[in-house]
Amino acid sequence: MAMADQTNVKLLGMWASPFVRRVQWALSLKGVISYDYVEEDILNKSSLLLELNPVHQKVPVLIHDGKVICESLVILEYMDETWKGIPLLPHDPHGRAMARFWARFSDEKLEPNAWTAMCSEGEEKEGALKRAIEAASKIEEQLIKGRRFFGGDDIGYLDVAMGWVACWLPVWEEVGAMSIVDPARHPRITSWAGDFLSHPLIRTNLPPKDEMVDYFHGKRKRIMAH
Amino acid sequence: MAMADQTNVKLLGMWASPFVRRVQWALSLKGVISYDYVEEDILNKSSLLLELNPVHQKVPVLIHDGKVICESLVILEYMDETWKGIPLLPHDPHGRAMARFWARFSDEKLEPNAWTAMCSEGEEKEGALKRAIEAASKIEEQLIKGRRFFGGDDIGYLDVAMGWVACWLPVWEEVGAMSIVDPARHPRITSWAGDFLSHPLIRTNLPPKDEMVDYFHGKRKRIMAH
Repeated sequence: MAMADQTNVKLLGMWASPFVRRVQWALSLKGVISYDYVEEDILNKSSLLLELNPVHQKVPVLIHDGKVICESLVILEYMDETWKGIPLLPHDPHGRAMARFWARFSDEKLEPNAWTAMCSEGEEKEGALKRAIEAASKIEEQLIKGRRFFGGDDIGYLDVAMGWVACWLPVWEEVGAMSIVDPARHPRITSWAGDFLSHPLIRTNLPPKDEMVDYFHGKRKRIMAH
Repeated sequence: MAMADQTNVKLLGMWASPFVRRVQWALSLKGVISYDYVEEDILNKSSLLLELNPVHQKVPVLIHDGKVICESLVILEYMDETWKGIPLLPHDPHGRAMARFWARFSDEKLEPNAWTAMCSEGEEKEGALKRAIEAASKIEEQLIKGRRFFGGDDIGYLDVAMGWVACWLPVWEEVGAMSIVDPARHPRITSWAGDFLSHPLIRTNLPPKDEMVDYFHGKRKRIMAH
């Protein structure tokens, strides 16, 4: 485990991707602040992206000392095993298991349903919205118990993995004219989101909200035109 | 890290689940051989299962020293961080990242498509079959390079995670009257499957093939009747 040699870190990303941003937040927590960032055009992927991630052809891709790592949650584990800085996962095996469990839950049950609800209408939207709200309510009731961050008093893996809930979800709710995380129904998630967004390493590392709204309005329109 | 105290280990399982069996294989690699195994009736889930895994209500559930861990890949990580015995994940962070990447790939791209192909007809079957074969070919070309097991000379995490390909997939292919992993197209997966199934800790820990075929024939019939 070493301090990061920042000259050997490259990230292929895309500014509006929540999966890229979680890697950028984690880099920040690890003290890696001057890495080489390459913005990808998702509609016209670079040959570098296709070469480095031939299986999924998706960002984020992290390149460290010539080693290529894909898939954002896999990248977070790699960073935590490679670099000092703020620890991402908890120390004890059961805490680690819980963090991994809820990161997957959020990626499998909340994110895809929130996305579908934004980009659909009628019955499809209603169904996805219901499933997204149920997922948020499970996170609300099972996870946060009077703790400031998911891992306790300090920010960590699950905060970074679920940071999109604080930052992307409100945009998707606005674009989709819908409500998923609601302060009355989800007071603990709402309070966490405020703390997360005002953390010194996060608040300086957020995408511009107005451009996000425009971007996802456009994205929604194109998807619904098909 | 300690030798497992086997009196404190309980597993909620179901004999025909590939996700349960990977946990049983990993327990065997860790030298945990006399744990308390509880067979669940999937059509009539026990109150214990609903209480311990309220989020997904699925097996496997591992209980160790009163701590509950769900989701098979999360359980494998927990076991590797908790017990001695054969190491599951490789030592180096990049090897660990690759193992996690391919375990997810297999669970997301090969398993669901193989399952759908078994339980469908016509265009739906053709599409799922094509995607399953493509996934198998990606595993074939990118992963195994003249090594006996996925991790190298010794069996480990990815072998256990993908063991269902050696043991379940042939049954699903028979029941679905289809071919996904083919010795001519996938010589390395085929050779690995033979080595995996004849490993001393695996060959004594396999579900009965004839009962598997009967079980999945019944399952397919019920799904296709809907």
